[in-house]
Amino acid sequence: MEVYLDNSATTRVRPEVAGRMVEMMTREYGNPSSLHRKGFLAEQAVKEAREQLAAVLSAAPGELLFTSCGSESNNLAILGYCRGNKRAGDKIVTTQIEHESVLAPARQLAAEGYEVAYAAPRPDGTVDPRAVADQVDGRTALVSVMAVNSETGAINDLEAIARLAKEKHPGVRVHCDGVQAFCKLPLNPRRMGVDLLTASAHKIHGPKGAALLYAAQGVRLAPLYYGSGQERGLHPGTENTPAICGFGLAAQLLWREHDKNWQKMETLSRLLREKCSQIPGVCINSPINAAPYIMNLSIPSVRSEVMIHFLEESDIYVSSGSACAKGRPSHVLAAMGLPRDRIDGALRVSFSEENTPEDVDAFCRTLAEGLRTLAGRR
Amino acid sequence: MEVYLDNSATTRVRPEVAGRMVEMMTREYGNPSSLHRKGFLAEQAVKEAREQLAAVLSAAPGELLFTSCGSESNNLAILGYCRGNKRAGDKIVTTQIEHESVLAPARQLAAEGYEVAYAAPRPDGTVDPRAVADQVDGRTALVSVMAVNSETGAINDLEAIARLAKEKHPGVRVHCDGVQAFCKLPLNPRRMGVDLLTASAHKIHGPKGAALLYAAQGVRLAPLYYGSGQERGLHPGTENTPAICGFGLAAQLLWREHDKNWQKMETLSRLLREKCSQIPGVCINSPINAAPYIMNLSIPSVRSEVMIHFLEESDIYVSSGSACAKGRPSHVLAAMGLPRDRIDGALRVSFSEENTPEDVDAFCRTLAEGLRTLAGRR
Repeated sequence: MEVYLDNSATTRVRPEVAGRMVEMMTREYGNPSSLHRKGFLAEQAVKEAREQLAAVLSAAPGELLFTSCGSESNNLAILGYCRGNKRAGDKIVTTQIEHESVLAPARQLAAEGYEVAYAAPRPDGTVDPRAVADQVDGRTALVSVMAVNSETGAINDLEAIARLAKEKHPGVRVHCDGVQAFCKLPLNPRRMGVDLLTASAHKIHGPKGAALLYAAQGVRLAPLYYGSGQERGLHPGTENTPAICGFGLAAQLLWREHDKNWQKMETLSRLLREKCSQIPGVCINSPINAAPYIMNLSIPSVRSEVMIHFLEESDIYVSSGSACAKGRPSHVLAAMGLPRDRIDGALRVSFSEENTPEDVDAFCRTLAEGLRTLAGRR
Repeated sequence: MEVYLDNSATTRVRPEVAGRMVEMMTREYGNPSSLHRKGFLAEQAVKEAREQLAAVLSAAPGELLFTSCGSESNNLAILGYCRGNKRAGDKIVTTQIEHESVLAPARQLAAEGYEVAYAAPRPDGTVDPRAVADQVDGRTALVSVMAVNSETGAINDLEAIARLAKEKHPGVRVHCDGVQAFCKLPLNPRRMGVDLLTASAHKIHGPKGAALLYAAQGVRLAPLYYGSGQERGLHPGTENTPAICGFGLAAQLLWREHDKNWQKMETLSRLLREKCSQIPGVCINSPINAAPYIMNLSIPSVRSEVMIHFLEESDIYVSSGSACAKGRPSHVLAAMGLPRDRIDGALRVSFSEENTPEDVDAFCRTLAEGLRTLAGRR
């Protein structure tokens, strides 16, 4: 029996979602740009998906742009906003704990002459809104802070971050990487004061190949590349209609149950915390009030990769930090000030609605066994 | 019975391809960047697809990059090459009949200070290799010419274009938009002297959301956006494993039968030409030796949109020019020097292996009926 506990890396596509996509691929396969009815039906399907997703964010459908992945959305927000609004300033403020798809375009802007300030997290992995606002000045075009950290689950108070940043400089725009929060926590960008927000389908049992960028009305963006004008010219190319429709359906299905899911995750998270506290040599890195979907823990005596491979022998799948970092030591845990052995022995357990208490049991049992077998093999 | 004759806009996904994608979405759904076995299996599946696609191009798998659509591949080739090789020159040469996803990045380069030369086509819609070479000089970084025109099916001699361009300036690189040629004509970029080549999945009964860029070993490209380093940093973001695997399988299945398919398309194309010649008021715009997949014709007395909607009433789907242009008058037919009424009354019929002689009959019968009913309603 497979125990998949790496849902922050990617999730299994729901059968209903896969079914909808097969319909879009084999029956409603038209190109939305075609003038005939088959094109019109495809266009209508995209419109419906945009409405489903806008409903989750309490946004207007016209504020949502479809892209091919969360990384593209983050880049379109950061590079697209700065390049499209050069007079807004030549500084951006972000944090040390962002995803690489935020840090990498920030470095690119730095190479182009921007000043980039990185707020440090608190020791528990959350971002102090004042630490962000302290860096904001009249030259600051954009602030970018994630809603839920992908490695620790730490939740940031985006509403306070946006408010304090805009008190400091009313012209600043705020981007939020909401990939790990979307359909899990309520996200209402307008109410939060967030101007740009990223979400991705494959983290919520939707398909790889679809993501969105919410861009509040009036926020101008420069394209990353150029073509026939689809998605207001900001993601040109034939719309990925099956993936977009799968994204819309996956969001609708997950959001409908988000209260119940949150409670279920809290139960799993509490159980995991409890059981880990009974295994000597395991410490928890996630703050107590983290999103219950994600728990980061360390076994300082065993390197992450060694434990990951031990666990996979029992068909149990977890990650070390972010999947995208592919085994490099976590920059998030380092920014939190954790010692090297805790960083090298870090594991991320990430739940979805499909997990059960039995999965937590199996993980903890095998972890304890691994500790006995492997301790000291660093 | 649906008669879908708009296969150059997009195609129906083959059931086997959809099946493979469902498997990748619901069973082998790992993130290729994950260190555990589920990640490894997803990585292997991407590797297999890269090999399937490389085989079609007689290329090394390492020369293929996956992107999200043909437009992105064309942009990565043109903007990526020029930005990544600023010392190669500040001029590019392309043609007047390219797809918008080539023309738009070319305009962007012009806005950034590049000189862009546009070779005119011959009256039959093909590009004279000498007309391209005439524009190439020592400052020319890149030449970009499509293999098969998406509106007329006109086939360009890329081998001669590359040879003459490189004779004129050995340092020039050649990009080919191969979207309408891939898996239909043999394309061997190394033998053709082509350094960069674009192909897309959804034109060959594969899924929307996957495309490739062949970039010959040693050709350096600058990324369009930045992230965790997937696809050598040139398409960062979680790999779209289901669409990539669907692309690989679709190419393998289609390429295996390309000789037989070509003959079948020639039969359909000949039949269409014959039947059209019997309908007064219809003229053919495609050259006689065009790729038999695409036939462009005009009814100068009826506007394209009017005829498209008349045909769709009988469940027959064709387009006016390129789907991406969404009803704007064709720049390709204009470059060929056709008079305005022939441009305004243009229809593109595009076949796939799924079409039959009965489809051609139905189209011609309904076209003739439309001509009787609609003529003069411009």
